[in-house]
Amino acid sequence: MNSSPNGRWSRSSHDGVRVTTTRPIAVLGGTGPQGFGLALRWAQAGETVIVGSRDAKRAQDAAERIKQRAGANARISGDENAAACAAADLLVLTIPFEGHAALLKQLKPAIRPGSIVIDATVPLAASVGGRATRTLGVWQGSAAQQTAELVPQGVSVVAAFQNVGAEVLNAQGPVDCDVIVCSDDPNASQIVRSLASRIAGVRAIDGGKLENARILEQITALLIGLNIRHKGHSGIRITGLPAVAYDSQ
Amino acid sequence: MNSSPNGRWSRSSHDGVRVTTTRPIAVLGGTGPQGFGLALRWAQAGETVIVGSRDAKRAQDAAERIKQRAGANARISGDENAAACAAADLLVLTIPFEGHAALLKQLKPAIRPGSIVIDATVPLAASVGGRATRTLGVWQGSAAQQTAELVPQGVSVVAAFQNVGAEVLNAQGPVDCDVIVCSDDPNASQIVRSLASRIAGVRAIDGGKLENARILEQITALLIGLNIRHKGHSGIRITGLPAVAYDSQ
Repeated sequence: MNSSPNGRWSRSSHDGVRVTTTRPIAVLGGTGPQGFGLALRWAQAGETVIVGSRDAKRAQDAAERIKQRAGANARISGDENAAACAAADLLVLTIPFEGHAALLKQLKPAIRPGSIVIDATVPLAASVGGRATRTLGVWQGSAAQQTAELVPQGVSVVAAFQNVGAEVLNAQGPVDCDVIVCSDDPNASQIVRSLASRIAGVRAIDGGKLENARILEQITALLIGLNIRHKGHSGIRITGLPAVAYDSQ
Repeated sequence: MNSSPNGRWSRSSHDGVRVTTTRPIAVLGGTGPQGFGLALRWAQAGETVIVGSRDAKRAQDAAERIKQRAGANARISGDENAAACAAADLLVLTIPFEGHAALLKQLKPAIRPGSIVIDATVPLAASVGGRATRTLGVWQGSAAQQTAELVPQGVSVVAAFQNVGAEVLNAQGPVDCDVIVCSDDPNASQIVRSLASRIAGVRAIDGGKLENARILEQITALLIGLNIRHKGHSGIRITGLPAVAYDSQ
């Protein structure tokens, strides 16, 4: 594998797998509104996307609906979560927090070495019957840091996409949001920033180490509160950084 | 006292104190960079501002420097913190967290009934020799909620201005930041949103209850990390809310 100047990846044929211009992205929990929206946006951008779900049929139905919106040439398919996982090396977690640890334990044998797990999970108190405007305390500091404890060795964890709402992703037109990307693996962070910037309107920003995911996760609770209070679909933009700090199309 | 249609306050002469068109604002810790910047912006907007400091002379020097920038007609003075407190009913806390509780205990007798305490304090780990990119756990949930425990009864606490950096406030030109305002007192929140929107460029947003201050405080740690990483002076804007959600000039 090598990285092209714009940060996209290509896999050359002598890797013995297949020739693609992009790494396939498995969106696990991709039948939920946020996962569906991310899968849609990446399919629209020409990425190869696999929608993952507990139920292969539901995943295939979601992929079919995405194809109807993204066009017949969209490279989108659906499969059961573990199968999606085994066929991809960019894995996006868009699942409710209550299923987070259990899914990761189940998927662990299917996660390929060298994969990147992109965690968009937010530990909302709604997971235990509380409010979506509050977060639970996670011992490791954040859902993403919990993920880092649960993935196999050699798998990088990147926190991103917590603050981009489902309604915004599933609407038409560019997304008026920045995506802050946090990871202890700078290469994985760069790959995910490239991936984020494939979504029209998104600017990706390096947010430093994975421990900062706790702040990204809390911001989501704040945005949900603003959405309820003001009847909107809020997101954030970061101001005041030099242009080179933003990764965008 | 009564509130004019645009949310500004006036005190009529039969209150027996004096005639002003605005409530005086005491910026406690106003010789520090963030307090100085807020005092400067409000003085520039025509508000009556008292810079508070442990040392009256330092406060007066800061007020003089602000006058030089804001113009000879600026209504700005400086005084020792308790005296500033006793002369105002909008009190802004812009102090390092290590002095937060001690200052509030000291000021308690000087805080007038009906005052609003606006807390911009962030419990950065730097307060105890740690990093400015991390926050301390505060038992009450946030510095602002700690403040709510320490003020006299009948005083409202409002969390705001944590995410507007000193460099941005002290620079020329409009501030490219939103200010999220959280309080359990809706009237106090509205007054502070009006005050925030007096700063050129700022849009103020009702962020709900005071408990949400914990998220505002953590965002500051994230922004400090972005500033270090990307050599900028970052702030946030909230996207996706209807126009009525934003209070601006």
